[in-house]
Amino acid sequence: MKRDPLIPRETSPWASDLQVSQWFNTREEIDLKRFRGKPVLLYAFQMLCPGCVSHGLPLVKAVYEQIPREEIAVIGLHTVFEHHEAMQPPALEAFLHEYRISFPVGIDRHEAGKSIPLTMREYGMQGTPTLILIDKTGRLRLHSFGPPRELLLGVCLGRLLSEHPEISEIHDKSV
Amino acid sequence: MKRDPLIPRETSPWASDLQVSQWFNTREEIDLKRFRGKPVLLYAFQMLCPGCVSHGLPLVKAVYEQIPREEIAVIGLHTVFEHHEAMQPPALEAFLHEYRISFPVGIDRHEAGKSIPLTMREYGMQGTPTLILIDKTGRLRLHSFGPPRELLLGVCLGRLLSEHPEISEIHDKSV
Amino acid sequence: MKRDPLIPRETSPWASDLQVSQWFNTREEIDLKRFRGKPVLLYAFQMLCPGCVSHGLPLVKAVYEQIPREEIAVIGLHTVFEHHEAMQPPALEAFLHEYRISFPVGIDRHEAGKSIPLTMREYGMQGTPTLILIDKTGRLRLHSFGPPRELLLGVCLGRLLSEHPEISEIHDKSV
Amino acid sequence: MKRDPLIPRETSPWASDLQVSQWFNTREEIDLKRFRGKPVLLYAFQMLCPGCVSHGLPLVKAVYEQIPREEIAVIGLHTVFEHHEAMQPPALEAFLHEYRISFPVGIDRHEAGKSIPLTMREYGMQGTPTLILIDKTGRLRLHSFGPPRELLLGVCLGRLLSEHPEISEIHDKSV
Repeated sequence: MKRDPLIPRETSPWASDLQVSQWFNTREEIDLKRFRGKPVLLYAFQMLCPGCVSHGLPLVKAVYEQIPREEIAVIGLHTVFEHHEAMQPPALEAFLHEYRISFPVGIDRHEAGKSIPLTMREYGMQGTPTLILIDKTGRLRLHSFGPPRELLLGVCLGRLLSEHPEISEIHDKSV
Repeated sequence: MKRDPLIPRETSPWASDLQVSQWFNTREEIDLKRFRGKPVLLYAFQMLCPGCVSHGLPLVKAVYEQIPREEIAVIGLHTVFEHHEAMQPPALEAFLHEYRISFPVGIDRHEAGKSIPLTMREYGMQGTPTLILIDKTGRLRLHSFGPPRELLLGVCLGRLLSEHPEISEIHDKSV
Repeated sequence: MKRDPLIPRETSPWASDLQVSQWFNTREEIDLKRFRGKPVLLYAFQMLCPGCVSHGLPLVKAVYEQIPREEIAVIGLHTVFEHHEAMQPPALEAFLHEYRISFPVGIDRHEAGKSIPLTMREYGMQGTPTLILIDKTGRLRLHSFGPPRELLLGVCLGRLLSEHPEISEIHDKSV
Repeated sequence: MKRDPLIPRETSPWASDLQVSQWFNTREEIDLKRFRGKPVLLYAFQMLCPGCVSHGLPLVKAVYEQIPREEIAVIGLHTVFEHHEAMQPPALEAFLHEYRISFPVGIDRHEAGKSIPLTMREYGMQGTPTLILIDKTGRLRLHSFGPPRELLLGVCLGRLLSEHPEISEIHDKSV
């Protein structure tokens, strides 16, 4: 993660919808549009990726625990692109339980015969962990592969929290 | 450090001037007014305070190294209120050299016969480490005693960096 | 782990054989008797046990990497007693690959209808991680449940390495 | 610290006496001969050496707290060879208090006009931290410069604790 890594709002693309085959820790399906008006932290990980577990996860949990939930949304995305047999839904469910992960986590949907799941492909993620920040208007403002840096992630979140877009700037504002 | 700890701008006081008897790592005396227009992180510490060295210092160094210097000012303040004989200027100088601290550090000025130095008293600091954030207008927006939390410090800095005050809101704008 | 936790040799029991249904990282089945003459560190863990992964594993890897292999044997035992569906052999294989575990690891054998596997039951283990030390003669000298302490584990290993038993004291010395 | 770093007893030299100008945390002067019959850990450090404080000290404190005091002696030696003015006795006293160091610590004696103090020179230490292990007979068995490795230090201590020398092998046994 580089210095001041936020993409300027004007040049940033709209964040694509998530393609999820199954959700955990939420009673209803999650649509990113639901969160217009607050920033979203999307954490793409694999349960058997050591860097995801030891570096990324503690930081994402810190965001979920230290920043009020009405101000920011935290979502996990299980983007399995290797060892598919080892990371099936019951394994993920046990993992979420053992690691006490209580924010919503979706399984990135697979297409038959393809190793890389749909959302991962759509976003062009290079691997795991990948950390995505979406702003209040629905724009993708950070896309960071590799171990995140706590201080800079905080700075980015502080910046996104401070933005106060006009209603007219919000994507798909019917929702 | 609590959740979202910034004091709202409207209710925050102007930050007092520093009372410094000697500066290190800077050729000229530092006046906080010089930094109007960018946030200031003021780190009050003692070189023989274990929590200051092991928890606070690495974080303050991270701020100094990871956020561009034209965007934020980092200043150390050596607020000695105990073991005075052990923390005289030559000891501090050796400490700064050994711990590779390159941002400006001032010695909080002592009044004869008083244990607590002047700036520490003026700011009402309860001990070390104390982390102070001053916004672009010169207002004191965070005053935090004890081990700082990296993520929340980042969020505060991101918020302060995002503020764009009018000239008329800046304290002592003649400078 | 308490101070000086080794069981005295005279009062310690012989270590039971392992009941393993499948081995990884070894071409041949492992029989503890093979290691008579050198101490054995047996690490009982579950791949989805956070304490096993974050505390126990780095220490066991340190033993494997820092102490010459001709002096000590390191063996992992996957003692699954919960989330059975999530920790099947292909999942363990992926885990060993991702966490770069290169010492031999066996899967503790399950009996139909029982949750606790055979070796775990035979040794009376209370959970994972459990660290077992077996001395050069085949006696069980340490049985420790919970996060191990690096310094004390080192002291125990140093003591076991320094023992020079007579041939007549070695269990089942025909092997 | 390399693998299995203990010097064999037969080829190891007798440990030299300490040259100490002032002791802390002990009512009487310490003579290494007093400890014949148990291993001695001698920790040479400087209070303003970051590696000594962050890496060596926690480990030496662990030895002092986790291994019974009747089995091993832990001694600190303040070997100041730079920033002499900053590390005078009152500074060391404040340091020992703030860092809660309760084992005996001696100040390595300086000769007028020499930067390197006497014991440091006599032992041929290259810098700080240096960790020295002396066995039950009074022989120097480990001399390690740089950050110590916890597991290997434990192994060395376990080995030394397991040695049971004859009275005739002990140096200067009149004491």
